[in-house]
Amino acid sequence: MSGNKVTLASLAKLAGVSTSTASRALNNNPLIKQETREKIQKLAKDHNFSLNAAASRLRLQKTNVIAVIINLEKETEQSIDDPFLLKVVSDINLAVNKQGYELLLSNSYMAGDDWHGYFISGRRADGLIVVGQGKQQQKIERAAIQGTPLVVWGDPKTQSNYPIVGSDNFLGGKTATEHLLNKGASKLLFLGEPAHAELGERYRGFLAALETAHHAKAELVRIDITSDAAYGIINQKLRESGLTFDGIFACSDMVALGAMKALKERYVSVPNDVRIVGFDNIAMADISHPSLSTIAQNTKVAAELLVQKLLQQLAGESPQSEQVDITLIQRQSS
Amino acid sequence: MSGNKVTLASLAKLAGVSTSTASRALNNNPLIKQETREKIQKLAKDHNFSLNAAASRLRLQKTNVIAVIINLEKETEQSIDDPFLLKVVSDINLAVNKQGYELLLSNSYMAGDDWHGYFISGRRADGLIVVGQGKQQQKIERAAIQGTPLVVWGDPKTQSNYPIVGSDNFLGGKTATEHLLNKGASKLLFLGEPAHAELGERYRGFLAALETAHHAKAELVRIDITSDAAYGIINQKLRESGLTFDGIFACSDMVALGAMKALKERYVSVPNDVRIVGFDNIAMADISHPSLSTIAQNTKVAAELLVQKLLQQLAGESPQSEQVDITLIQRQSS
Repeated sequence: MSGNKVTLASLAKLAGVSTSTASRALNNNPLIKQETREKIQKLAKDHNFSLNAAASRLRLQKTNVIAVIINLEKETEQSIDDPFLLKVVSDINLAVNKQGYELLLSNSYMAGDDWHGYFISGRRADGLIVVGQGKQQQKIERAAIQGTPLVVWGDPKTQSNYPIVGSDNFLGGKTATEHLLNKGASKLLFLGEPAHAELGERYRGFLAALETAHHAKAELVRIDITSDAAYGIINQKLRESGLTFDGIFACSDMVALGAMKALKERYVSVPNDVRIVGFDNIAMADISHPSLSTIAQNTKVAAELLVQKLLQQLAGESPQSEQVDITLIQRQSS
Repeated sequence: MSGNKVTLASLAKLAGVSTSTASRALNNNPLIKQETREKIQKLAKDHNFSLNAAASRLRLQKTNVIAVIINLEKETEQSIDDPFLLKVVSDINLAVNKQGYELLLSNSYMAGDDWHGYFISGRRADGLIVVGQGKQQQKIERAAIQGTPLVVWGDPKTQSNYPIVGSDNFLGGKTATEHLLNKGASKLLFLGEPAHAELGERYRGFLAALETAHHAKAELVRIDITSDAAYGIINQKLRESGLTFDGIFACSDMVALGAMKALKERYVSVPNDVRIVGFDNIAMADISHPSLSTIAQNTKVAAELLVQKLLQQLAGESPQSEQVDITLIQRQSS
């Protein structure tokens, strides 16, 4: 770098811009107008100046990369190709790019237990977005205590020393369950695992809706949050005890779709015999037949909030957790 | 860095390993045995030596990052949250991590037209994996000519100056169509857009299977490759001309599921009235009711081949394109 006769500062001066604008322009950062970029890139070429991004990041102490960690639990079969997780990642990717950052897609495997050391001290990223709180939050807390700029997609009501962005899961559970009751269902199943922070809130909402419905019965069916698990348990229930329920609130659309498949195979009519509401509003909810009623999570808005709160931390601020509105989408299954 | 009394080389000597092993160990690279990593990390701590990943990458001229570019076309509504694309990305992520690399998830927006300049000269990544050939391959070709290490997920039969890994799309189309014919269908639709390299091969396979089926009729229905487009066109066909077909080979599962939804809403029985086969084997193919017969693409094997061929390029070799086997998965829809 020291061999360059023209420095970034002198180049910026020539172009009449700040050094950070010049650096961004040479890095082809879309935040700088294309006209400006081209002008500065031409100047650099004319003066035989080459900006090396790794060197420039080193100088600026910035990577311009945001790492996204998919925080899956070992004991679940829910995998990184779960449609909802991927929708979240895809929306985060768009939001990250919009701010001129790149997204490093990570799982816990590469980073090990020391997220701060791996990502921040190792200058792999400027900050972390963790997708999924999981049941245990130690790794996240440890990274936050070590000063890692980070935000989490999860249950925003959880007490934490880092900002969490997520849906109003309690209201989602309550809204879904009230909808089932209003449609005439009175023997309800909750399919899911309340030990997960977000699903626990959905279950609390389920119970809250049932409090005023004195005639209704409810059963918690704890299952792994996959369509296979839902398919298996509904099959088993029908085989062993027949049709003992007329409404299902599933903790995710994948779980709802697995349950619906088992019902249809045994000629139980959805929604006539059993009404179903899912959660997430993945693409398949609309394509399935009958189409699936669901609580839509606004992942687009959430992704933008996550990135915004991370950038606020990079700027020295301390943003708070924030809840994103949910919407009941009524389709044929209820 | 120059302030360190202990150098990486002297640390490596102390530990009795090569400097590259020492560097990897300090970077927590999982390719190095945990025992060795811990030993070297302890040594580094004892000698107050801190390795900065960005600086070390600069020194080694390596980023240890592989960029994945989702190469979508502007004119399609297929989006980055298409389930099959996301499955491919997720499998690539696992394969990349397995080799001790991180994955930078990119779309064309950030990189602009100059992929070589942005990723390689800009030291954002050591090489590129491009998912999707699209209809135009200029950007990929240009990057390859400039010496960018790159591999493409696409149609491996395409003539190219870079290796392409993908399914045997011709055989896939032929197998799906022969299956429909064997099951008694004789008025077939092809739903898709043969202008895409991969879909063109599937269509050629479709036509090849029909060559020996003299009694059968076939129609090409050119549509955007989304479930919405398929739903719309099948609805329109049924409304305008009634049921003029008894078999559908859909170019993707999403397209097949959209078509199936339109049929079911108009009480056309699948598979009794119309048999359907899709392509990809996404998770929803199994969950839909009736479950969807499909041609499975082995994305796991393909992802490992992509990464392997990219690493071979980084090592100075010139790997060839390679075809991955497909499998017919027969389910209820056919």
